[in-house]
Amino acid sequence: MHSLEPIFTLLKKAQSRLALADRYAKDTALGAVANALDRARGLILKANETDIAKARRNGMKEALIDRLSLNDKRIDAVIEGINTIIRQDDPVNKVKAYWTLPNGLFIEQVIVPLGVAAVIYESRPNVTADIFSLAYKAGCSVLLRGSSSALESNRAVVAAIKQGLESGGGIGDAVGLADSGNRDEVDVILAARDWIDVALPRGGRELIRRVVENARIPVIETGEGNCHIYVDSGAEVPNAVDIIENAKAQKPGACNAVETLLVHRDVAASLMPRLAGRLAGRVEFRCDGPSRQAIGVPPTDLILKDAAGEDWETEFLDYILAVKTVDTLEEAIKHINRYGTKHSEAILTNNAASAETFSRQVDAACVYTNASTRFTDGGEFGFGAELGISTQKFHARGPMGLEALTSIKYRITGQGQIRA
Amino acid sequence: MHSLEPIFTLLKKAQSRLALADRYAKDTALGAVANALDRARGLILKANETDIAKARRNGMKEALIDRLSLNDKRIDAVIEGINTIIRQDDPVNKVKAYWTLPNGLFIEQVIVPLGVAAVIYESRPNVTADIFSLAYKAGCSVLLRGSSSALESNRAVVAAIKQGLESGGGIGDAVGLADSGNRDEVDVILAARDWIDVALPRGGRELIRRVVENARIPVIETGEGNCHIYVDSGAEVPNAVDIIENAKAQKPGACNAVETLLVHRDVAASLMPRLAGRLAGRVEFRCDGPSRQAIGVPPTDLILKDAAGEDWETEFLDYILAVKTVDTLEEAIKHINRYGTKHSEAILTNNAASAETFSRQVDAACVYTNASTRFTDGGEFGFGAELGISTQKFHARGPMGLEALTSIKYRITGQGQIRA
Repeated sequence: MHSLEPIFTLLKKAQSRLALADRYAKDTALGAVANALDRARGLILKANETDIAKARRNGMKEALIDRLSLNDKRIDAVIEGINTIIRQDDPVNKVKAYWTLPNGLFIEQVIVPLGVAAVIYESRPNVTADIFSLAYKAGCSVLLRGSSSALESNRAVVAAIKQGLESGGGIGDAVGLADSGNRDEVDVILAARDWIDVALPRGGRELIRRVVENARIPVIETGEGNCHIYVDSGAEVPNAVDIIENAKAQKPGACNAVETLLVHRDVAASLMPRLAGRLAGRVEFRCDGPSRQAIGVPPTDLILKDAAGEDWETEFLDYILAVKTVDTLEEAIKHINRYGTKHSEAILTNNAASAETFSRQVDAACVYTNASTRFTDGGEFGFGAELGISTQKFHARGPMGLEALTSIKYRITGQGQIRA
Repeated sequence: MHSLEPIFTLLKKAQSRLALADRYAKDTALGAVANALDRARGLILKANETDIAKARRNGMKEALIDRLSLNDKRIDAVIEGINTIIRQDDPVNKVKAYWTLPNGLFIEQVIVPLGVAAVIYESRPNVTADIFSLAYKAGCSVLLRGSSSALESNRAVVAAIKQGLESGGGIGDAVGLADSGNRDEVDVILAARDWIDVALPRGGRELIRRVVENARIPVIETGEGNCHIYVDSGAEVPNAVDIIENAKAQKPGACNAVETLLVHRDVAASLMPRLAGRLAGRVEFRCDGPSRQAIGVPPTDLILKDAAGEDWETEFLDYILAVKTVDTLEEAIKHINRYGTKHSEAILTNNAASAETFSRQVDAACVYTNASTRFTDGGEFGFGAELGISTQKFHARGPMGLEALTSIKYRITGQGQIRA
């Protein structure tokens, strides 16, 4: 027996009870959790300060310190997320489809909770409450395994959640924190076929790869986003430059930020100078020959380089934009299906047929027409929070809300039928 | 490069085209495949004879020879399955859900094919055409890896399928047979993360375990069924004995056959003697004390043994029935959730509350009220055929038809929206 077995047992027992809870009971408990988090702000922020001080002593970079940091605004966002989740329909025990067989058997496909989820994530402690809330509403227990750098913050958040559950008549054991800090805890979780129904890794590429390669339990792969915007022939999208700027520069470290711009040769000459003017001094351009030529005389503060082959396959997560000119819509689709990571892809066009072809033929979780790729996010989609953004097709795809934590069960009602 | 890469490439290219095919095109092609299989009967049965002769020379048991055998009736069933699949709705490109965000973005959840499926299966060559037909209608390519004992039969079936696809304007490369006979072919398939979207093992416990443990690609676990029937207190289900007989003895080797009978102590005395009388000479009983006592004086030809602990966890796949008496519905549910394999579970009852409690609390793919467990089968459910019976909750559960081979894509339509 390893150290996590007691917590696995509690989570599984709690999940059996939670699976039977009705919407009113779950929403009441979640409301109490929101209140408890609100009341525990002081303790949570203090615990977070401890984590941050320790991280600074260990030389953590400021960008990562920012990810680790909680403040009133972030706690407000968590609470607002819970309230959005409360307003959402309860998927559990809904009948998804039903039919009667010729022999009179009545078959119903009923939605049920998936079971126990394990989330393995990096430094952001606001994820802790987000994930718990979605899981609870979906009737799932959740095992949280955060970064050791966020340990005190996560302990404070989980303590507040458990307090809220108790005061709201909920099931406190439906959430557990794996907080021994041992690295092999992750391996134990990933091998726990009898206990855990799905593992959700949230974090950088290395974490996700480690989870995917070692798991003996189902995993939902998330995150990697080599996203494209394609500007179509004849596209007189007035704010094309705004959309590209937003997708690239509003938050370049996000997985849904654009990395490569594909420009139809017909529009390169009109688009590229305006785009270069807008992004000069902020974004480095890595252009193929024709798109570089289309810029003409570059603004003096534009960092302009020639694109190399590896730029097409790189998720920069930085103020860098690769630009390629294409001759046709088909060439753009081919490029995206070759180099993309099936995350978020956009076309800017005035042509309905182009939009339709792009939407159907591009193989990605989210395909946009005339909008920034930055909307691929559970919160933006209206889910209140997200479990992550699935880049696989199996079980769940794109921003994952309640639905990703459900399964089905067939309920078959007869009057004594036997098989011939 | 390994030997399967050319076939992977063809399957993937074919799938991109097939994903765009409309229902009419797919149904026309499937109709032509049904005709081609009909016309190729002679060749297929001859190839099957070759396989059977070889299997007999290698000393294969007659029960397995039966699984390997094709005949006109089995080919008729395959063709009828294809016709049922043709009549089913095409799930692809249907909008599953849609909503508008406050910023005007219109979001649609569109059903798309899952991609390329690999099916690794044992001796039944009728599975070959069943799986292909479901996959084709769902817009998926399929790689078939059958048993080496069925190699000639599978080659003949796949040749007929390809001929049908060509004559019906379909996409012949959407089906491939891995027929080198090398055992490491399976390992190559299970590691093909860039090529295969799901692996479906169909066969015995050992095959499934091997696939689940070695796969680097998503797997749907199928088959193992330690199924129960619980006879509730006061159950005056007139044909309880018929149902139990059907679930046990109609085909004991099936995964949906019942293995353990749970009898409420109130009904043991009336049920057990009748059941023993019906099954004596055919089914061995392994009883706990009270159920043995309830039989009274056993029929002379009844094989009656004391149940041992391991009987509760054994999928006999044989003319053996374990019997246990329980004091309450709750005890029955607890027993099933402890020993069951989440496959098919039944309650026989006249009490609506008992049926509701059983249906909600038993964690299984199929939960029956007043019917035999033997209906858990894609064909019986009206799917025309099945990919197998999923015993996991992730992605697909229970008998798998078209839906199990689909995923979704978000299609987002804007008017220039950018993220604030």
